[in-house]
Amino acid sequence: MIRFECDYAEGAHPRILERLAETNREQTKGYGEDEYCGNARRLVRGLCGNEAVDVHFLVGGTQTNSTVIASVLRPHQGVIAATTGHINVHETGAVEATGHKVLALQAEDGKLTAAQVERTFSEHWSDANHEHIVQPGMVYISNPTEGGTVYTKRELQALSDTCRKNGLPLFMDGARLGYGLAAEGNDLTMPDITKMCDVFYIGGTKVGALFGEAVVITNENLKKDFRYFIKQRGGMLAKGRLLGLQFETLFDGGLYFEISRHAVQMAMMIRDAFTAKGFKFLCESPTNQQFPILTREQIRILSLKYAFELWTNINDHQAAVRFCTSWATREEDVRTLTKDIYSL
Amino acid sequence: MIRFECDYAEGAHPRILERLAETNREQTKGYGEDEYCGNARRLVRGLCGNEAVDVHFLVGGTQTNSTVIASVLRPHQGVIAATTGHINVHETGAVEATGHKVLALQAEDGKLTAAQVERTFSEHWSDANHEHIVQPGMVYISNPTEGGTVYTKRELQALSDTCRKNGLPLFMDGARLGYGLAAEGNDLTMPDITKMCDVFYIGGTKVGALFGEAVVITNENLKKDFRYFIKQRGGMLAKGRLLGLQFETLFDGGLYFEISRHAVQMAMMIRDAFTAKGFKFLCESPTNQQFPILTREQIRILSLKYAFELWTNINDHQAAVRFCTSWATREEDVRTLTKDIYSL
Amino acid sequence: MIRFECDYAEGAHPRILERLAETNREQTKGYGEDEYCGNARRLVRGLCGNEAVDVHFLVGGTQTNSTVIASVLRPHQGVIAATTGHINVHETGAVEATGHKVLALQAEDGKLTAAQVERTFSEHWSDANHEHIVQPGMVYISNPTEGGTVYTKRELQALSDTCRKNGLPLFMDGARLGYGLAAEGNDLTMPDITKMCDVFYIGGTKVGALFGEAVVITNENLKKDFRYFIKQRGGMLAKGRLLGLQFETLFDGGLYFEISRHAVQMAMMIRDAFTAKGFKFLCESPTNQQFPILTREQIRILSLKYAFELWTNINDHQAAVRFCTSWATREEDVRTLTKDIYSL
Amino acid sequence: MIRFECDYAEGAHPRILERLAETNREQTKGYGEDEYCGNARRLVRGLCGNEAVDVHFLVGGTQTNSTVIASVLRPHQGVIAATTGHINVHETGAVEATGHKVLALQAEDGKLTAAQVERTFSEHWSDANHEHIVQPGMVYISNPTEGGTVYTKRELQALSDTCRKNGLPLFMDGARLGYGLAAEGNDLTMPDITKMCDVFYIGGTKVGALFGEAVVITNENLKKDFRYFIKQRGGMLAKGRLLGLQFETLFDGGLYFEISRHAVQMAMMIRDAFTAKGFKFLCESPTNQQFPILTREQIRILSLKYAFELWTNINDHQAAVRFCTSWATREEDVRTLTKDIYSL
Repeated sequence: MIRFECDYAEGAHPRILERLAETNREQTKGYGEDEYCGNARRLVRGLCGNEAVDVHFLVGGTQTNSTVIASVLRPHQGVIAATTGHINVHETGAVEATGHKVLALQAEDGKLTAAQVERTFSEHWSDANHEHIVQPGMVYISNPTEGGTVYTKRELQALSDTCRKNGLPLFMDGARLGYGLAAEGNDLTMPDITKMCDVFYIGGTKVGALFGEAVVITNENLKKDFRYFIKQRGGMLAKGRLLGLQFETLFDGGLYFEISRHAVQMAMMIRDAFTAKGFKFLCESPTNQQFPILTREQIRILSLKYAFELWTNINDHQAAVRFCTSWATREEDVRTLTKDIYSL
Repeated sequence: MIRFECDYAEGAHPRILERLAETNREQTKGYGEDEYCGNARRLVRGLCGNEAVDVHFLVGGTQTNSTVIASVLRPHQGVIAATTGHINVHETGAVEATGHKVLALQAEDGKLTAAQVERTFSEHWSDANHEHIVQPGMVYISNPTEGGTVYTKRELQALSDTCRKNGLPLFMDGARLGYGLAAEGNDLTMPDITKMCDVFYIGGTKVGALFGEAVVITNENLKKDFRYFIKQRGGMLAKGRLLGLQFETLFDGGLYFEISRHAVQMAMMIRDAFTAKGFKFLCESPTNQQFPILTREQIRILSLKYAFELWTNINDHQAAVRFCTSWATREEDVRTLTKDIYSL
Repeated sequence: MIRFECDYAEGAHPRILERLAETNREQTKGYGEDEYCGNARRLVRGLCGNEAVDVHFLVGGTQTNSTVIASVLRPHQGVIAATTGHINVHETGAVEATGHKVLALQAEDGKLTAAQVERTFSEHWSDANHEHIVQPGMVYISNPTEGGTVYTKRELQALSDTCRKNGLPLFMDGARLGYGLAAEGNDLTMPDITKMCDVFYIGGTKVGALFGEAVVITNENLKKDFRYFIKQRGGMLAKGRLLGLQFETLFDGGLYFEISRHAVQMAMMIRDAFTAKGFKFLCESPTNQQFPILTREQIRILSLKYAFELWTNINDHQAAVRFCTSWATREEDVRTLTKDIYSL
Repeated sequence: MIRFECDYAEGAHPRILERLAETNREQTKGYGEDEYCGNARRLVRGLCGNEAVDVHFLVGGTQTNSTVIASVLRPHQGVIAATTGHINVHETGAVEATGHKVLALQAEDGKLTAAQVERTFSEHWSDANHEHIVQPGMVYISNPTEGGTVYTKRELQALSDTCRKNGLPLFMDGARLGYGLAAEGNDLTMPDITKMCDVFYIGGTKVGALFGEAVVITNENLKKDFRYFIKQRGGMLAKGRLLGLQFETLFDGGLYFEISRHAVQMAMMIRDAFTAKGFKFLCESPTNQQFPILTREQIRILSLKYAFELWTNINDHQAAVRFCTSWATREEDVRTLTKDIYSL
C-alpha cells in the first residue's frame, strides 16, 4: 500500500531527529524559555522581515486556533470564518468551548473575500438590535485553505484593509503555510503575510516536524499576556526546547521551504496526470492536496494499491477524493501512481 | 401612533397586577419555594396531564434557553436548531457562551423535520473522524417558530420519535406557546407536547405576564440538579413568588388560553385584510405574528400611523414587515388598521 | 410567626406597585430603551454626581455579579474577593462558569484591605512562573459586606488607590447599598463611591423593589459593549421599563434612602436589645443584618415565635443567627421581639 | 552548573530517541489509532491488571487535568483538591476556564483525607440552600503530591471508599507516578490504583519521555466519548504514534520503573546528606523531590554551583528549596552535591 492519505503519516524530517539526539542530554530551561526557542524566534523574525513580532511555539493546530481566538475576542464576539474552515467543522467545537460563535460564511474555494467581511460587519452594526446578535470580533482564514487553494497578494491585501478599517484582527491559520508559499502562481511572501495579518502561524506538524506550530503576533494589542493563554489551554510544553529545536532546524538554511517545494512538485505530477486524463477537480489546488473527482469504480481500483481519503460525495456514482503529498513522498511512488492514473 | 411592533410592549394582564397588590405584604420563602410557586406547579402539571413532570420558573427566554441547553449537553455536544432559531440568531451567542455549538440547519418555515434530524445524526456517526466534529446532543425547536408557523401533531410526533430513537432530547422553546395552541388548525395539546418533548417551556413574557417562563421537564434524566443551573445562570429570582403568582393567575381558570385566543383573532383580522388585498406573506402564520410583504411606499404610508417592525428585505422595493398582537391589542385599533390596509 | 429571616420576604414598596398599575397599558420600547429607564438613569447620575457614568438595569444579584465580572476580565485573569464574598460562596460558581477563578483572601469582617490586594498583586508578578498562575484582574468587594459591616471612606480610598496603581478595576457589589449608606457612622457618599469604584451596583431586590439592580460604570474602558453582555447572560428584560419604573420610584424624592434608614433603625433596636442583655455578635454590624450569638436553647425559644436564619455554628452549644430588617419591617414587631430578648 | 531544578530539564531516555529514529519513515494512521498506541495500550492494561480499562495518550499534564475534569463534571459541579494541588495553583485557571470551581481544602503534606472529603460532601448536602453552592462532583489528588509525599494503600483505600459511597469519581494526577511507586515504604501497586481510582494518569513528561501522559479510565461511566474531549481540548496529537512509541518503550521491559528507581535513589542520597547535617525539610518526601530548609547564606553558597528551585519562604532568613532528580541524574553529580552539603 502506498499512502497519500495525509501529510502527517510519517515522523519528521531526519535532520530534526538528528538534532534531538545530539542535544538530548543538555539541560535547558523549560516552557519555551530555552536557547533553541530563542534562536528559532530570531529565525522566524528574520523570515518575517520584522524584528518586533512576538513568536510563540505551540504543539498542534486545534490548540493553536482556539488559543489565539480566545486571546483575541471578548466574550460577546465571534469569529468570521468560511463554512469549510477547519475551526467550523473539524475541531470538535474547540472555539465554541471557549465561549465564541463561529460566524460561518459560504466561501467559494474556501476563501473569504473582503466584500463578504465588509457585508457581515456592516449588517451587524446596521441592525437596530445588534446587541442581541454576536458581534463580529475577528476574521479567521486558512492559507492554503482546506481545499488547497491560496490567497493572492491582492486578495489578502483587500481582506487586510477591510479588517483594519473595521477593527477586526485578521488571523491566518498556516497549518500548511509552506505548501502555500511553494505553490505555483503564489505571489505572497512571509513579509507580506506579516504585514497583512495581525496574527498567523507557520505549521510544523504537516510540514516536516514531529509536531509544532509557530505563532507570529504582529499586532501590538494582541501580544499582551499571550503566554498565560498558552499555559491555560494546555499548549505550554514542559520541554519547550523540542519545539524550538524543530523550528530552528526547519528554518535554518531554508529546509522548511525546500521540503515544501518538493511536496508541491509531487502534487503537481499527480494533478497533471489526472488533468491529462480529463478528470475534473473539486477545486483548483496548486498545493500539496489534490481533490480529483472519480467514479466509484475508479476509486475502488486505485484503493487496491493506494491509500487516499474519500473527501466528499458528488453524486451517486462520483466522489471527490484527496491525495496528499509531503516532505516524505517518494518520486518513485508518485510515478507508479501517475502510471496507474493513465491506465484508469 | 398605534403599536403592533411586538408582543411585549405593555405591562401585564391587569389580573396579575391585582394579585401582586393583594399579596404584597405577605412574607414568603424565597427562590421559588413559596406556596404560589407550588400552586402554579400544580396547575402546570394539571395542564400537562402528568403529575410527574418537574416545573421551574425562570425570568426570561434567553436565560431559559441557555440554562436548559447547558443542563442537557455534555461539553463536546451541540444543539441542532433551525438557522432561523432564536438561539442561533438573537441571543448574542448565549449558547456558545456555555461552550456549545449551535448546529444550524436550513428549515422551511422555521420548522425542523424528522428527516433532517435523522440525516444530521447519521452523517455524524458515519464519519470516520467523528470525534473531530461536534456531536449532536439535543434538538431545539420553537413552537410557534420565529416565523409564526406551528408544528402539527404528526410533525412533532415524527421529530419526537427520531429524537428518542437516537437518544437526542427534544427541547421546545414555547416563548409564544399560547398563541400556537390557539392557532387555527393547531392539533397539538399540552398533554401531546408533554409526551413528545423531553423539556419545553410555556412563555409568560410574551403572553400576558410581566415576565417569566415556566419550564417543564418530562425526561427523568434531565431533572437532576436543575435548580443549581437556574441559580448559576442568574435565573433564580429572590422573590420567586412573583413568578408563581403570575403563572397561577394565568393558568387558574384558563386566562392564558383566553388571552392567547384574543391575540390570534386580532392577528387573523390583520391577515385577512392583507390577503383580501392580494398581499403575499413571508410565511403562512396562523398565530399572533403576521409577516406581509409590502412595497417601500406602502411601508412609508402605514408607518405614519402604526408602529411595526421591518423584518427582512425581499428586494430593492419590497420588504417583509411584522405585525404583532397580544392580550393587550384593542379590536378598535385593529379595525382602524384593516381599514387602512384596504385603502393601500 | 414574625419573620426576620431575610430582606426579600415581601413584595415591593407599595408606591412601586402603584406606578406599575398606573403605567400598565402604556406601550414602550423594550430592553431598557424606554423613557422610564431613561429617567431612572438620569436620577442615578444625579445621585452619583457624575453625568458621564453609564447606568444599566439588571434583574438580580448573581446575574449582575457574573455579568460585570465577565465583561471586565480577560480569560487568564481572576477576581480577588474575600473568602466570605457572595461570589465565592453563594452563587453556584457563576463566576467560574464564565471561566474565571475567584482569588479568595481571608478577610476580617468580610472587608478586603488595600494591603492585602497589594500583596496578592505583587506576589503574582514577582513569581518567576507567573504565567502558570491566574493573573489578578480585578477586585470585588461588597458594601455592606455579607457580615453587615461597611467600608469607611478612608478604607475605600486606600483600596481604590491600590487598585488604580496596579490597573485593577474595583467592583462594589451594592446589593444592600442603601443600608450601608444609612448605617451609623457611615462616612461614604454616592459621589465618593462613584469616584472610588470603577463599577458598582445599587441593589433594588433587597431594598424595596420587586427585583432589580442598577449597575453604574464609571471607568470609561469598561463601558464598551456592556449591553451585549447583559443580553448574552440573560439579564436583558424584554419589558425593561419594569426596572426603570422601579428605580425611578425609589430614587425620585429619596424613597430609597428613607426606607433604608427605617430598616437600619429597626436593626439598631434589635442590636441594642441583644447588647443590653450582654450578648456578643459575630461581627459589629451597623446595618440591617444583625448576627448575635445565642445558645441552642435561646434559639429554640425565639424560634417558637420568630423566623430568623441560623448563620454559623460557634461551638457545640452556641451559634450565630441572623436577624434581618427591611422597608417592610414593622416597629411593633420589633418591639415585641426586643421585649422577648430582654426576657431570655 | 549542575542542575537539580526540575525533572524535565533533559530530552528523553535514549531508547526513546532510538525508537523514534527506527520508525520515522513508517506510515501510520493518525490521532492515536496506530499500532504503537495499540501496543502501548495493551502494555498499560497489563500493568493495571485489568483488560477492561480505557487508555488514552495526551501531550501534557495541565491539558490532561483539565480534559479529564471537564469530561467528568456537570456545569454546576466543582472538583475537591488540596490547596497545594497543581490544578489549584499552577495551571493558570485551566479548570476554571472549563467552567468549574476548584474546591480547595487545606491538606497536611498535600494529601487529602477521606474524612475531609466526607465532611465537605456532607456539609454541602446539609446546607438548606445547597443549590446556591457549587456541588462537589469529583476528587482530585496527586500521587506523589506536589510536596513529594505519597499515599499509603490504606489512605487511598479510605479515600476511594468515601468517594464511591458518595458518588464522587476519584482522579489521581500521576505526573510523577513512577517516582511514587519507587518510593521507600510505598505499598501501592498499579493494580491497587486501578481498583481504587476512577481515572488516573501515568506521567511520561517527568519520567523519561519527551512528553506524554497516559490516561487510564477504569469507571465505565467516564469512558464515553472521551476522545471528543481530547480533540476539543487540543490534546489529540496528529502523529499520535509518537505517544504510543514512547509509552511502549517505557513500559516494555519495565524501563519506566527502572529509571524511576534510579531517580529516587539519587534523591535519597541528597536527603540523607541533608538529614545527616541536621537540616529540616518542608515535608518528608520519599520521592524524587526534596525540600530542605536552608538559610539564605546556605542557599547563596549552593547556588554558585548548583541550580535548584526556591520553593517557599519560611521566615526572614530561611527558605525551603527544591532539589529534583530524574532518569538523567548522574550519580557523580549527586556525590559532588552531597559532599558540598556536608561542608555547609
